Amino acid sequence: MALALSLGRRGQGRCWPNPAVGCVIVKDGRIVGRGSTAPGGRPHAEPQALAQAGDLARGATAYVSLEPCSHHGKTPPCADALIAAGVVRVVVAIEDSDPRVSGQGLDRLRKHGIAVTTGVLADRAAHDLAGFFLKTEQGRPMVTLKMASSFDGRIATATGQSQWITGPEARRAVHAMRARHDAVMVGAGTARADDPALTVRGMGATHQPLRVVVSRHLDLPLLGQLARTAGEVPVWLCHGPGVDIERCRAWEGLGARLIPCALRGSQLDPADVLRQLGQAGLTRVFCEGGSALAASLLGDDLVDELVGFTAGLAIGAEGLPAIGALGLGQLTEAPRFDLAELRTIGPDVMARWTRALPSL
Amino acid sequence: MALALSLGRRGQGRCWPNPAVGCVIVKDGRIVGRGSTAPGGRPHAEPQALAQAGDLARGATAYVSLEPCSHHGKTPPCADALIAAGVVRVVVAIEDSDPRVSGQGLDRLRKHGIAVTTGVLADRAAHDLAGFFLKTEQGRPMVTLKMASSFDGRIATATGQSQWITGPEARRAVHAMRARHDAVMVGAGTARADDPALTVRGMGATHQPLRVVVSRHLDLPLLGQLARTAGEVPVWLCHGPGVDIERCRAWEGLGARLIPCALRGSQLDPADVLRQLGQAGLTRVFCEGGSALAASLLGDDLVDELVGFTAGLAIGAEGLPAIGALGLGQLTEAPRFDLAELRTIGPDVMARWTRALPSL
Repeated sequence: MALALSLGRRGQGRCWPNPAVGCVIVKDGRIVGRGSTAPGGRPHAEPQALAQAGDLARGATAYVSLEPCSHHGKTPPCADALIAAGVVRVVVAIEDSDPRVSGQGLDRLRKHGIAVTTGVLADRAAHDLAGFFLKTEQGRPMVTLKMASSFDGRIATATGQSQWITGPEARRAVHAMRARHDAVMVGAGTARADDPALTVRGMGATHQPLRVVVSRHLDLPLLGQLARTAGEVPVWLCHGPGVDIERCRAWEGLGARLIPCALRGSQLDPADVLRQLGQAGLTRVFCEGGSALAASLLGDDLVDELVGFTAGLAIGAEGLPAIGALGLGQLTEAPRFDLAELRTIGPDVMARWTRALPSL
Repeated sequence: MALALSLGRRGQGRCWPNPAVGCVIVKDGRIVGRGSTAPGGRPHAEPQALAQAGDLARGATAYVSLEPCSHHGKTPPCADALIAAGVVRVVVAIEDSDPRVSGQGLDRLRKHGIAVTTGVLADRAAHDLAGFFLKTEQGRPMVTLKMASSFDGRIATATGQSQWITGPEARRAVHAMRARHDAVMVGAGTARADDPALTVRGMGATHQPLRVVVSRHLDLPLLGQLARTAGEVPVWLCHGPGVDIERCRAWEGLGARLIPCALRGSQLDPADVLRQLGQAGLTRVFCEGGSALAASLLGDDLVDELVGFTAGLAIGAEGLPAIGALGLGQLTEAPRFDLAELRTIGPDVMARWTRALPSL
């Protein structure tokens, strides 16, 4: 199952709107087939693993990181494929929460006399597939918030200088993380100040996540890196009502997709932004700031995972904060996270935090 | 030597103005004597270890974490004690930089036919004795800066709430660190806002470091915890010129020691504050903020070690920053530190950074 999960993770960032699933077929203690959901989400992992196994699938055990589907979508049901191939046992990490599948895939297998085991490494599968589950259950993608800051939590000097606070090793890790998400997202301020490409670089030929900019007024430079490359790697722009029609046309002309979102007060409603992105199919979004967007997501409890890279330098209070105003009344209202991973990365510290479960 | 260093560290915080040294006497592969500099700095480590060894010191090897002294201070020279005891070999971690000793202790031993080895675990000894060396060479104590913050670098909410950002495990670690320093130091703002006791608690009966408050105007509450306990654990107040004479008298009446320091511009000069503390004998100072004092020390490159405790919560930009304004022009001017230690402590992260060597 650990191998099936690892195969599944390979598809992260490139299978949306489908889950990135892994499948391993084992016959007489030997691996005879492996599969991962293909880029774009099809074919699924199971038919690929079965095709690799061929006749050896008869009498074999299939390990799948997610309950096999039972409905006719754009591909025939994977449960049927496993049945047809003569698999005698299916081990599943976690059940699907998609109402078209939930439990029905397993029922179908059992009805055909296949032994079914579930819940093997379920925690790990729940983590790997969190984006898919969130989209299915809450209609929004999983959000990973990245911060690269000085040890006093500053992401740039007062004059906006941010290159480079962290070292090349941390920046490389960020590129690897981008590649494992469906989209990289920034706020308008960051897009204007840093003119970022938000692409994956230095990783060899790889999948490019699409780029999302959250900009209420769509006041983004039309000659910047995002504009120039919008024809190559998709750019989606989440904007508010009443934006200038000329700007819309200019961005559409460059190949960008415009996504109108609702306001809450004078700001774009972060929950609606994520709802729109979920509706558009995204399961995993990697937010790289800036401080206003980070604060807006944190304030609405919409950050699932937080990755902080901390460099050994002090910038001081005039520097740009990693997280904008949250308007907390009491310390008990602060968004809380549990440490999931801690390590050094080059000269910097990497800490991964996941949203804390509400205390009882 | 590792044991000698460990014995030496036991004295940290309680030997000032003397260095906290450890000594181990080994005869025929067996430890026959151990000593650490006693509280208050006398007796030194060597005579204690020799006394424990008694006649067994004859023909033995002595491991000492610092070059034995050669001058008549308030105690006779330790080099002479080693010679008189008949020790045949002395292994030293690091030479003393005190001009009254530097190299002369070793010379004296060699002249009496004792085999001398130096530089064993010298790095570790240099770290352990950094406060003593700084006081000898630069006339100031070593400064450890502690920060306990949210992952966005905030030490309190906008309303000043700071209890508790980090967990009980981190707070306990802070008390243990206080005990290993000669003094705990805070700025006037922290003393007013938090009314801290700055004592070591929950560690059993232990040494209490003295408390230093840096307050230009001496505008500190006379009914607070520091004032109430000034008769039990010393309170030193570093203040600027022209402070109200009544306040001075009131604090002296409570038992506090007043230390006049120079201004630089409108602020107390942090270098002069440390010079005064060094002249008063301190070797190791543990600074616990607040943000203005932290920035003032960092800005003058006077922080030798920085210990950050980071909790898994976000406070946001209105929160109180860990480090005040530094007035950096460029990122290259930022004070830089190298990671020396990284670990979890309860639910929090502890990172220890030491001042980075200037890059070549």
